[in-house]
Amino acid sequence: MSLTVVGSVAFDSVETPFDKRERMLGGAATHFALAASFFDEVHVVGVVGDDFTAEHEGVLTAHGIHIDDIEHVAGGKTFFWAGKYHDNMNSRDTLDTQLNVFETFAPKLSPSSQTSETVFLANIQPSLQLDVLDQCTNAKFVALDSMDLWINIAKDDLLKVLARVDCVILNDEEIEMLTGKPTSVSAAQALLDLGPSVVVAKQGKYGAGVITREGSFWLPAYPLHEVNDPTGAGDTFAGGFVGYLAAHPERPVTFEALRRAMAYGSAIASYNVEEFGTDRVSRLTGPEVVARVQELEKITRFDGATQVDLRR
Amino acid sequence: MSLTVVGSVAFDSVETPFDKRERMLGGAATHFALAASFFDEVHVVGVVGDDFTAEHEGVLTAHGIHIDDIEHVAGGKTFFWAGKYHDNMNSRDTLDTQLNVFETFAPKLSPSSQTSETVFLANIQPSLQLDVLDQCTNAKFVALDSMDLWINIAKDDLLKVLARVDCVILNDEEIEMLTGKPTSVSAAQALLDLGPSVVVAKQGKYGAGVITREGSFWLPAYPLHEVNDPTGAGDTFAGGFVGYLAAHPERPVTFEALRRAMAYGSAIASYNVEEFGTDRVSRLTGPEVVARVQELEKITRFDGATQVDLRR
Repeated sequence: MSLTVVGSVAFDSVETPFDKRERMLGGAATHFALAASFFDEVHVVGVVGDDFTAEHEGVLTAHGIHIDDIEHVAGGKTFFWAGKYHDNMNSRDTLDTQLNVFETFAPKLSPSSQTSETVFLANIQPSLQLDVLDQCTNAKFVALDSMDLWINIAKDDLLKVLARVDCVILNDEEIEMLTGKPTSVSAAQALLDLGPSVVVAKQGKYGAGVITREGSFWLPAYPLHEVNDPTGAGDTFAGGFVGYLAAHPERPVTFEALRRAMAYGSAIASYNVEEFGTDRVSRLTGPEVVARVQELEKITRFDGATQVDLRR
Repeated sequence: MSLTVVGSVAFDSVETPFDKRERMLGGAATHFALAASFFDEVHVVGVVGDDFTAEHEGVLTAHGIHIDDIEHVAGGKTFFWAGKYHDNMNSRDTLDTQLNVFETFAPKLSPSSQTSETVFLANIQPSLQLDVLDQCTNAKFVALDSMDLWINIAKDDLLKVLARVDCVILNDEEIEMLTGKPTSVSAAQALLDLGPSVVVAKQGKYGAGVITREGSFWLPAYPLHEVNDPTGAGDTFAGGFVGYLAAHPERPVTFEALRRAMAYGSAIASYNVEEFGTDRVSRLTGPEVVARVQELEKITRFDGATQVDLRR
């Protein structure tokens, strides 16, 4: 089995109320791949420039992540993003975006990336997501991310992609915006009518829910004493979530697998935000992930069965 | 056993993107009492004007709620609030606030209200909360709500109340503002150092967490297809939460009781927002509450124990 992710590899400069870092390795595909590498062989399809060095490659290859399909554009510069987080760390301003080589990114999947049965289309132009889908002849489970920009300027293409994927992973505000429905539940149900069988509504620092035609499951975020860099949390969550499903190939996916995938995605994402960039997840170990999943279960479980004497 | 709540009885005019209602019975003490009446005898201490009629009294007395300590000010008008919800229903603008008789509210507890072992200080001026505490000679468990206004203009008094209560129930943003800490966990821990042994961080439409020195428990909000009026959701939650604890008088409160109190508070609050004002909770039945608690358990439970084969 293997898992292919198509998306951005980038450098991020991040400022928070407490600290700042310059030009860290980042990008959706990077964060996704590091999280997914706990579960499966991961192929990254992306594009970088001359400033992407052997040291950066090493962050990925150290975890067995395949980088053959990361195209190097000679003379080009890698996608760069700079942002500043507000006091509550749940919202941010973009200070700078330099698409650079990412502007003309045309994903080309090598035969080995094409063999993957699981594919994650990170947040890129919907027309490119469609191109990738045409190349993924072996895909059995495809998940998609997107953003408000594409909902606004490329909704038709986005709807075409939606009709061809199994799973949508978006922020709750994005699914509400995309469907024009006022709640996550009504928006998710509208999305299920458009093609996907699984909808994940991410809720930022609060957690996430997964909704299928069978029901829903909701998981609070792991409570942290300190958050140092939320960048990439959503992609890290997606990496754990989709990675778990890639490694548990019963299809259609079972609701039980979805619940556990949510817990693993959430656990790894909670580590991601503890430190800047990829620092924490790069050195994260399996036992640490398992420990946090168990902790998540402990702090969310209650006994709803015991009879309570009500006066009404 | 009995439970006393001190706070606002009001009329609310509410506008949402979908509908509007004029001068509905509302106020923190009203919503709290209706929810708490599932668990215990409730005494409401408040103040109203001539516009508060037998019909309004009936909404409370129909559920055995004691209203002897709701003072009627002859020639006065009841506290009035008007607000308009934004598209996502999680934020709102206040259109009008007329304190009326509430402006000179001086809570006076009759002997029967004073016998309560459980007390909820709804969101009123901290100096009044202190007055009430002096009158509650029999209190074994006191919980408190407040708001950003008091944190800004009466923080010293608020800290004095905090030092004397067992439980604080605030929005996550409020506990962060009150303590100057950036996360719910760090803010709650700072609050635990100020006196209370239980901190509840409400997260609006996302759910809530309870934090003690023993640990924490986090519960997502019950997912609704439709939300029609979020007004009073926090007070309804508090009513279910504190009401449950009042009816389970083991002191100090056990963590097990806190988890279940969270579930009952959350379940009743989810009904509250389904319809305008007190409409839904007024006719809510015990079996409906129990069913939603069980549903909440079902949609939040996962198996974190099963061994997963990780590659790292």
